[in-house]
This record gives sequence, C-alpha cells and structure tokens, in this order.
Amino acid sequence: MTNLKRSTCPIANVLDLVGDRWSLLIVRDMLLHNKHRYGDFLAADEGITTNILADRLKRLEQYGIIEKTPYQHNPVRHDYHLTEKGRNLKPMMMEMVDWGLKYIPGAGPR
Amino acid sequence: MTNLKRSTCPIANVLDLVGDRWSLLIVRDMLLHNKHRYGDFLAADEGITTNILADRLKRLEQYGIIEKTPYQHNPVRHDYHLTEKGRNLKPMMMEMVDWGLKYIPGAGPR
Repeated sequence: MTNLKRSTCPIANVLDLVGDRWSLLIVRDMLLHNKHRYGDFLAADEGITTNILADRLKRLEQYGIIEKTPYQHNPVRHDYHLTEKGRNLKPMMMEMVDWGLKYIPGAGPR
Repeated sequence: MTNLKRSTCPIANVLDLVGDRWSLLIVRDMLLHNKHRYGDFLAADEGITTNILADRLKRLEQYGIIEKTPYQHNPVRHDYHLTEKGRNLKPMMMEMVDWGLKYIPGAGPR
C-alpha cells in the first residue's frame, strides 16, 4: 500500500485510492445492498478473503470513504458506513453498471 | 491474468476488466490526450513501465476496448485506438474526474 500520488491527474488519483479489484465491491455492498458488517461483506458472491477484506476496510477508512462505529463491546464489533465522500462515488458506479450491462455478456442483476 | 468472472454483478465484471491502477490511464491517454503510440503512453507522468504497458495493451485489445493498426512495417509498429466500447468508458471516467477534483487534495488539470 502506497500513499504516494503518481501524478496530479484526477483519474490517476482516484485509481490510487480505489483502483483495485475489491475496494469498490465493498462500497457497492454498502451503497446498493445495505450491508454494513464484516460478515456481510465476506458473504458476497465474489468470495473476498478475510485478509483482503480487512486490508480494504482499513484503507477505505483511512481515505475517508467509510467510517466505522462500534455496535458491540467485549469483543468489539463494528458497523461500517459510507461517508458523504463515499456516497458520492455512486454516479461513477452507476456509469460502471451501465457500461457493464451494455458491453459484458452475462452481466446482470443479482 | 484471469478470464474467470467473479460474479454476474456488472460492477465486479467491469473491475475484472479494468480494475487495476494502470489500464484506465492508457484509456485516458487515448480518450483525452490524443495519444496513440507506445512511446506516448510510456511518457505519461505516472511512469508506467514497459512490461506493464505491454501487458495492459494486450489485455485491453483482448477485451475489445482498443484495437491496433500498423503504421510501419520492418519493424512493425502500431497505432492504438479506442473501439466504440472503449470510447463509451468516457462517462464513467468523467465521473471519476468530478469525484477526484472534489475530494482529492492536489488533484487538478495537467
């Protein structure tokens, strides 16, 4: 994980944050599927592993895209929610949906 | 490189194709900066390496997002252009620009 920006290009900057195969799937689960807990994300069809999930949750929180709040103590457990910054990824993700449905055979509703 | 789709979710499907830190920067260079040759992509601010560039060009062609045509023989050299499928990534990329300019400090025009 690097925090070095590759350039000032906004597209490169966005890819520095969420340009990987998993981060936006966690955002998707919060934004479109009303999932907010660790176990819910683990259960997604794509089969994310625990180490990747933990890493991406930490990154997304560090980037200000999600925030966590405890819903249980001893042991502590957290809910994860999108910040305003995270919620505003929706227009980009809706364009991804449109493009995927148009151009990728087999893409469709769950 | 895998061709296995992780699910039928269109967002996951798009990430299977271009969910990495480099592919969309090559698309950006063709779409917004009128670059079409190998050396032009190599010269981008982000400092893509030759092996990553060659791999991503091959993938993008395989996915039908770009196509190459020879502009010289002996040795053969190619121009790369977006297909209609590739050009239609523009709305998604414009949303990335908007989000990056709004939320990432230091992001701006070249």
